Amino acid sequence: VPQVWLNGRLVEAADATVPALDRGVLWGQGLFETMRVYDGRVWALDDHLVRLHAGAEVIDVPVPEASEVARAIDEVVAANDLKDAGTRITITRGSGPVDPQADADQPPNVIVTAWPLRDYTELYDKGVALVTIAGGGRPLAGLKTTSYVMSVAGRVIAKRAAADDALFLGESGRVLEATGSNLFVVEGESIITPPLEEGILPGVTRRHLMAVAPRAGFVVREEPVTLSQLFACDEVVLTSSLREVYPARTVDGRDVRRLGVDQKLRAAYHAAVLDALD
Amino acid sequence: VPQVWLNGRLVEAADATVPALDRGVLWGQGLFETMRVYDGRVWALDDHLVRLHAGAEVIDVPVPEASEVARAIDEVVAANDLKDAGTRITITRGSGPVDPQADADQPPNVIVTAWPLRDYTELYDKGVALVTIAGGGRPLAGLKTTSYVMSVAGRVIAKRAAADDALFLGESGRVLEATGSNLFVVEGESIITPPLEEGILPGVTRRHLMAVAPRAGFVVREEPVTLSQLFACDEVVLTSSLREVYPARTVDGRDVRRLGVDQKLRAAYHAAVLDALD
Repeated sequence: VPQVWLNGRLVEAADATVPALDRGVLWGQGLFETMRVYDGRVWALDDHLVRLHAGAEVIDVPVPEASEVARAIDEVVAANDLKDAGTRITITRGSGPVDPQADADQPPNVIVTAWPLRDYTELYDKGVALVTIAGGGRPLAGLKTTSYVMSVAGRVIAKRAAADDALFLGESGRVLEATGSNLFVVEGESIITPPLEEGILPGVTRRHLMAVAPRAGFVVREEPVTLSQLFACDEVVLTSSLREVYPARTVDGRDVRRLGVDQKLRAAYHAAVLDALD
Repeated sequence: VPQVWLNGRLVEAADATVPALDRGVLWGQGLFETMRVYDGRVWALDDHLVRLHAGAEVIDVPVPEASEVARAIDEVVAANDLKDAGTRITITRGSGPVDPQADADQPPNVIVTAWPLRDYTELYDKGVALVTIAGGGRPLAGLKTTSYVMSVAGRVIAKRAAADDALFLGESGRVLEATGSNLFVVEGESIITPPLEEGILPGVTRRHLMAVAPRAGFVVREEPVTLSQLFACDEVVLTSSLREVYPARTVDGRDVRRLGVDQKLRAAYHAAVLDALD
């Protein structure tokens, strides 16, 4: 029966579990490294630890001491009677309250596994067939996966800047979206939001607000938004399922204008939702 | 005590666990949606299910029937005595063998949570302070996080094309890396690999091969690599911790040349590792 090292002890693989509320499960807030074991000796652990520490700094996941990692790998390799093997360390952020917006308040979960090295003879002989994928993250554009660590990193950066949230910018300084909210700028009777083609998340609240706003007297435009527009417009509002429609106060420390349009939009949206639910 | 809906039944939040070998934990291969509950009624579930199904198609995670999701939300909202709430469904791919390269062979894990809606009065009143983050995924460039679903998507795409792996292309058709391996092209006595500034993962095997190759008579260059170079060069090789150095056979169905350089490089790399371990 394969054994797994989990938080300091060996357990059977089938019994190794982590909390469903681990921020690694919910947000992909975790780090990992895969290493090769040659005749029982792990190769280049120090190099892999350097990369783990680089990640730890950005996404706020603590890394155990090098000696503990080395011991865990030795133990799991020995417990599974392995000589030539693959080994992997996975560190997740740990669990927190049921409300997923709350930070983790439990220690990280550390999982170390090892398995027999595959036979690569045929792979070396035949070589691999590759397909190319163009366009960066395009396959994932608009999907809401648990690989959400970009938003985690945005929140970490915002927190360190004593701000509330981060706003991702795209090419040529275009404004895209916040870590979990879509963005609109208000210019007179118009509300303008970046089009989905910019690679943003197709927010459900964004779409419903676009349907509701004309009834409240606003013209809706889907157009690229620039950073300078944020400082020139009448108001910057954000949308999310939980917060509905809410205003920005500052961007990079600079005040943005507030004319109270957020209240009108929120009231119209809220009323439309309650109407539809009745 | 907060209750969580997990795979068809309500459990106390502290007892809700998923396997440590769940591909959601290991690779961020999962989907989620967050919705608002108004006086016990969830809003826009159908819209959120559309997005779940869009993700399911790309990253190979099955989505439960709409009626089951609706029932789960109702149950968890009622079990926690909630009226105005947030609710979230998380679907992970499920667990598989200890060898993380193997696909999941267990069913997905479905987690539905609900929690009291936060009081947003102050948020609406004050507005949020934002910081901007430029440069797309730059904060995460070079980090190896469990938010690895881009690689999962690449493998799904490769499998559907009856290929072995996917090769990500960057701007202007530049070749970056495979889903879990770095890339080199061989041109005579030179081996060329894209620089880290292209946003690729700083592979440990890549770096060691760069140190070893000169001793085997090769000149190492870090330079952008174009797709046409792949078809013109003497050989395309890939590097990973487990596979060490291995050759490509085809790219997008077209043969690439193979002059056996992979064997020389692999032998030199392998010998250097064994030397260093002794």
